Amino acid sequence: MSAAEVVATYLVETYLPLEQAAEAIAGEQSTGTFTAVARDTPELRERFAARVLSVEELPPTGNPDLPGTTRSRDAVKRSARVRIAFGLDNFGPSLPNLLAAVAGNLFELRQLAGIRLLDLDLPAPFAQRYPGPQYGVRGTRELLDRPDGVLLGTIVKPSIGLPPEELRLVVRELAEAGIDFIKDDELMGNPPHSPLADRVAVVTEELDKAAARTGRRPMYAFNITDDLDRMAANHDLVHAAGGTCVMVCVNLVGFSALAWLRERCVLPIHGHRAMTGVYTRVPQLGIDYIAWSKLARLAGADHLHTNGLSNKFYETDEEVLRSITAVRTPLLGGYETLPVLSSGQTPGLAPETYRRTNTTDLLVLAGGGIHGHPSGPSAGVTAMRAAWSAATSGTDLTTAANQVPALQEALNKFGSPYDGGRDGRG
Amino acid sequence: MSAAEVVATYLVETYLPLEQAAEAIAGEQSTGTFTAVARDTPELRERFAARVLSVEELPPTGNPDLPGTTRSRDAVKRSARVRIAFGLDNFGPSLPNLLAAVAGNLFELRQLAGIRLLDLDLPAPFAQRYPGPQYGVRGTRELLDRPDGVLLGTIVKPSIGLPPEELRLVVRELAEAGIDFIKDDELMGNPPHSPLADRVAVVTEELDKAAARTGRRPMYAFNITDDLDRMAANHDLVHAAGGTCVMVCVNLVGFSALAWLRERCVLPIHGHRAMTGVYTRVPQLGIDYIAWSKLARLAGADHLHTNGLSNKFYETDEEVLRSITAVRTPLLGGYETLPVLSSGQTPGLAPETYRRTNTTDLLVLAGGGIHGHPSGPSAGVTAMRAAWSAATSGTDLTTAANQVPALQEALNKFGSPYDGGRDGRG
Repeated sequence: MSAAEVVATYLVETYLPLEQAAEAIAGEQSTGTFTAVARDTPELRERFAARVLSVEELPPTGNPDLPGTTRSRDAVKRSARVRIAFGLDNFGPSLPNLLAAVAGNLFELRQLAGIRLLDLDLPAPFAQRYPGPQYGVRGTRELLDRPDGVLLGTIVKPSIGLPPEELRLVVRELAEAGIDFIKDDELMGNPPHSPLADRVAVVTEELDKAAARTGRRPMYAFNITDDLDRMAANHDLVHAAGGTCVMVCVNLVGFSALAWLRERCVLPIHGHRAMTGVYTRVPQLGIDYIAWSKLARLAGADHLHTNGLSNKFYETDEEVLRSITAVRTPLLGGYETLPVLSSGQTPGLAPETYRRTNTTDLLVLAGGGIHGHPSGPSAGVTAMRAAWSAATSGTDLTTAANQVPALQEALNKFGSPYDGGRDGRG
Repeated sequence: MSAAEVVATYLVETYLPLEQAAEAIAGEQSTGTFTAVARDTPELRERFAARVLSVEELPPTGNPDLPGTTRSRDAVKRSARVRIAFGLDNFGPSLPNLLAAVAGNLFELRQLAGIRLLDLDLPAPFAQRYPGPQYGVRGTRELLDRPDGVLLGTIVKPSIGLPPEELRLVVRELAEAGIDFIKDDELMGNPPHSPLADRVAVVTEELDKAAARTGRRPMYAFNITDDLDRMAANHDLVHAAGGTCVMVCVNLVGFSALAWLRERCVLPIHGHRAMTGVYTRVPQLGIDYIAWSKLARLAGADHLHTNGLSNKFYETDEEVLRSITAVRTPLLGGYETLPVLSSGQTPGLAPETYRRTNTTDLLVLAGGGIHGHPSGPSAGVTAMRAAWSAATSGTDLTTAANQVPALQEALNKFGSPYDGGRDGRG
């Protein structure tokens, strides 16, 4: 019997004594049922029961109670950070079976007024089962021939509806402008009006032409998200045509489907986080991005969306920075994933993003921020590049904009969110 | 271009004008971005934009605001049932790509103080892509040789840790007692201490022996949940040994993995709902069971867990009854799935469950309610069977208990939740 354990960290909020609530979680998620049953021996519990490692009380969170919470009269809600160890022998190093143990029915327990899986410590056998990211930061930089500096990308806009021949023009313009990375919108799959095979054909042709002219071939992440056999076939199609990246919406196929693809995949996997909000938005429920991103990285995501500062979604900058740190934190002795900053990203955000992340190991995507540039996408790329160049060299954006008219135009239109000049969000 | 559309129904709560919030959803989930972009023409929008079909204001819900909600001073929160149509040509009849459109980034929108996907109307092309349940109610009844009456089952307890030779004794006793269905706990996967192959061997041997003696072979749902290739191999192992059912935790593998298995599967799929609470528990966020269960049925679940009345989890009886109705409502011209009632189920619940569901097309699982019977699991089965027999024939439970000592014992221990005598829940 191996001594390997998974340690799950939870936010627990309850009207019960904290230790009792912690034991309820450990029981529900291992050997317990609601009444004593035959063959349930102390020896069996000793070997298989999950163990509460620590209960660290926290200040009141102010979170609303989950519906259906048990509360006795006069009881006071308390909150704690609870760590629970699950013997790996209970389920083996399998992502779906891990989820049964550390999540499972937990979110339905009436004893809990709040229950959120915050973090997971995974033992070495997971690394033996799951190879993790194939390219990560270094592999992506090598493919792009960008050994340093921020990686700059965009999303094809409009999100859907663009015929392949118009997509060709968009890609041509972006590639000529020196962008590093282009991706399909997550809403663009393999629809009849713009089949993936047609998109792959026109895009790779344009990238090849750009490479011949400029010496640099941008990476294009084709959204291959689909039912699994189709997703694998989509990957093969992209690879056969000379594509260098595929995008998968992690939650829409599931962690185990991502891991399944990873085993068949020779291209970097750009992991989109669509639907993560259902896990993360309510702080008293769900799965925190820190735990979520570990599962996605384990399953093989080379790139992982974190949102960006001042994004158009609900997350605060502090939450975004925490997600970026999470993705960059070493996992299982080396699994390396590139954080992808997106949503409402404009040149004005570069200095603050660099100041607060202190790294250029970032893939920064500007969709509207590039396509909506007053002088067109090419000027949008120039403006983003100039802004990041200024940010990393410590040059003031206003000074840089004096030298780069495209940057000045972008700042005029999108503003600089950190000096109060921003508009156009919403 | 096909006129097929998906219609998604949402609960929307917002401080914006309701129509504006509805349009924000339709925009984010189809052609929109945060600023005007090149090539975004009225013609493109006309063809590809999602359309708001209706906005039906609801009384205030009392739900807390989602974090990060935009609210202007003096604005009042309003709630509405909003129906939005998405052209199927935007993504095709694919489960993951459907989720990108109807869920996607939606849960992260700051414009929404509440956003929940309530229901989905799926057009016929989904039925062409996904064969749906292979057995459903009728197929399961045929395999069990139970043309009518409630189907009675249990979960192996203790949940984990039982050595195969002890599992053998549990299964023998239950099979002799005439149970219809036995399942692995969702925490029991394929762990080193009790490998699936060993469990399959002892269980099928015992079921065969029971069938030879009693003329009736219970169905055993082996939990095959695992990484996908392993899950498919697990299914083949169960089938090769003469097993008649497999269990899959739908959320832990994902809808598309379930659909992938369905294409390779010859056995009924028992769909467990572990982790559904993360989608359902907070009413102002997530995916309602009605929409969730349609996706699981489409992907091929023959059985689907709904919880039972008076269960030990957070759901009210009204919510459980709504879930049972959802699973029994015809889908795509006939997809038929058997509702599975479980959690805290005891004989005392039979009359109320039958009165309120008005059907015996139910698989009722009692775990602790059978294994925790004072005279052992065999008496537990007898008590459950007697209680359901009384319920469907209109006999009072107390009267029935006079004839069946095992039922009297069960009522003494577990009580009858609807006459105030219940205890033992926890």
